Amino acid sequence: MMQSAAIPLGVTLCVLRSNAPGTDIRHDAAAAQVVPSTMTGAADDATVVTTLAEHCDVVTFEHEHVPAPVLQELETAGHTVRPGSVALRYAQNKLQMRQHLTHLGHPCPAWWAATSETEINTARDAAGGDVVVKTPTGGYDGKGVRMVSEPVQPGEFADWFADHDALLVEERVRYTRELSVLIARSPSGQGAAWPVAETTQTNGVCDEVISPAPGLAAADAEHLTSLGLRIAADLDVTGVLAVELFERAPGDYCVNELAMRPHNTGHWTIDGATTSQFEQHLRAVLDLPLGDPAPTSPWSVMVNIMGGTHEHMYPAYRHVMAHDPGLKVHLYGKQVRPGRKLGHVTVCGADLPDLRRRARHAADYFQGVIDG
Amino acid sequence: MMQSAAIPLGVTLCVLRSNAPGTDIRHDAAAAQVVPSTMTGAADDATVVTTLAEHCDVVTFEHEHVPAPVLQELETAGHTVRPGSVALRYAQNKLQMRQHLTHLGHPCPAWWAATSETEINTARDAAGGDVVVKTPTGGYDGKGVRMVSEPVQPGEFADWFADHDALLVEERVRYTRELSVLIARSPSGQGAAWPVAETTQTNGVCDEVISPAPGLAAADAEHLTSLGLRIAADLDVTGVLAVELFERAPGDYCVNELAMRPHNTGHWTIDGATTSQFEQHLRAVLDLPLGDPAPTSPWSVMVNIMGGTHEHMYPAYRHVMAHDPGLKVHLYGKQVRPGRKLGHVTVCGADLPDLRRRARHAADYFQGVIDG
Repeated sequence: MMQSAAIPLGVTLCVLRSNAPGTDIRHDAAAAQVVPSTMTGAADDATVVTTLAEHCDVVTFEHEHVPAPVLQELETAGHTVRPGSVALRYAQNKLQMRQHLTHLGHPCPAWWAATSETEINTARDAAGGDVVVKTPTGGYDGKGVRMVSEPVQPGEFADWFADHDALLVEERVRYTRELSVLIARSPSGQGAAWPVAETTQTNGVCDEVISPAPGLAAADAEHLTSLGLRIAADLDVTGVLAVELFERAPGDYCVNELAMRPHNTGHWTIDGATTSQFEQHLRAVLDLPLGDPAPTSPWSVMVNIMGGTHEHMYPAYRHVMAHDPGLKVHLYGKQVRPGRKLGHVTVCGADLPDLRRRARHAADYFQGVIDG
Repeated sequence: MMQSAAIPLGVTLCVLRSNAPGTDIRHDAAAAQVVPSTMTGAADDATVVTTLAEHCDVVTFEHEHVPAPVLQELETAGHTVRPGSVALRYAQNKLQMRQHLTHLGHPCPAWWAATSETEINTARDAAGGDVVVKTPTGGYDGKGVRMVSEPVQPGEFADWFADHDALLVEERVRYTRELSVLIARSPSGQGAAWPVAETTQTNGVCDEVISPAPGLAAADAEHLTSLGLRIAADLDVTGVLAVELFERAPGDYCVNELAMRPHNTGHWTIDGATTSQFEQHLRAVLDLPLGDPAPTSPWSVMVNIMGGTHEHMYPAYRHVMAHDPGLKVHLYGKQVRPGRKLGHVTVCGADLPDLRRRARHAADYFQGVIDG
């Protein structure tokens, strides 16, 4: 998706093909299928990453799993890394994110750092019984996250404590819905914000995104957009920042997570905004003036295509295209695996229930949930 | 531009890097900068083109200069070529185009085939004094076209007659404006049409495109769209077809030229239509259902960026982006050369005079015509 945005800008990408260290994310050359210039190596190998940086004006990211010391080494050597390692650690480390946002006065769920099962239980008692325990680093798409409603037993989190000195324990927020504030910020401090989106997660994975968030009061949208821009400025973010939020009730919000890269909750911008998050990210990290984030339709709805029962996408493709000529399909060139994000669909227009129905039908058809 | 459309579709391109035979078009690897899979060789070398075809499900074109015998050889060997050689010859050979369109009853300027300067003069007399002489093949962007207003001398066209048995002589149409009907047609016969556009040529090269054509009566737009779809069906075109038209007066139109590929007069569709001409071309040649060609804004204006006095685009880029965040810039990755098409800008919205002013300002700035 970054390459589609880079081409008209005349920006040449060079992709590091690697596994994300500390995770089982396999970047099976999806980007390399569409970018001529690639390097192969591990994202935590300083030599590899330095060689990449020497070929590029700016180093940026599609995931957060490049270790901070590697990035600091690049910066010390004079390479331009955006977002920088100081900003990025708040997307890489959820404990540091909570500490810093709380210090800055930005709204967070109640949270604790726990170094043992005993401390998890103490936090659970303080939270009223239900907490979420998270690894500070390495989590994504529901991995590195466990819901806890009963007292935990000694050793129950031994696997995580083996890799992490402390875990993040958060109150289980009783939210009415999740929102995402997507903004971009350039090194010169220019900011741009897309309309706040409503997001639905299924099993910890983003499923549906609606922009703008239905029924969100204008004052709340403005407040949350300001919050996003302030967090970006406070953390000195460059590029796209997604601030995922819980809405406890209208007017009552707290920050769930931060991502410092084009984000799943912003894929709708490819088809639904004057400037997509991918174009904006490139403009931001290259310190070019930012583009207009205005939506081009009253509503945009995006639904992810997850790996399902269809091994090949092509037969479903023909049906989906014939069924809905106005639907935009985005496939990522990945091998089908159950539960894997393989692509997404977006529809833009004026009739929100119709858009939601159309996007859901297409995704369900791709996934084999329905066959007609 | 095709690659930006191919990526979300999950379509893998393989590009033949070559000069267009019979022309001085240098495809200096602009496409190869953004497509990993390329082959190098001449587009009139049957061996090279056959090797390419063996790697691909479908062979298609970004210019018309692949010789018909080469394409026929591919088709005989069972490769899928879209548009096919039979259709493509009407875009490759202007004499055959005129003969066939006239045979089919589609409106053309008065025209003659001339095998000598004497016959050019006879045609000029019949046309009332002003004619356009064209090489039947190999022309583009004003090349292979000469205006004739005085009797021509023996030998004056010797250079063209050396390469062509006959030249096309057309009456000089006194037109009020030029229009472009852009349609797509799939092998199964499905057709889709974008709104008719008004185009302005400067020195034989497309300069500005406005869609929809201002002031075009709805009945005329419908008539011209039908004309385009009928020509596509009559010629069995697959992929995008641009029918360039002269408007002599409202309601009075004749065909100027045909192009069977995504066309400069359709670049506005990238930013201004639900389905761009590049996506639609890929869907059509792959016999996938066609997408919705509906515009996403009341007006779209595209202006080409021609090579001018700026050797590098980057400084102009910063200014243009800062000046107009809603402008979409498309650079083609080509070396700057005076008069060469290096990119284009598009703006979409509701205020046509404002859009025209903004697009012109950006193009003029890129070209060094203005500096502020």
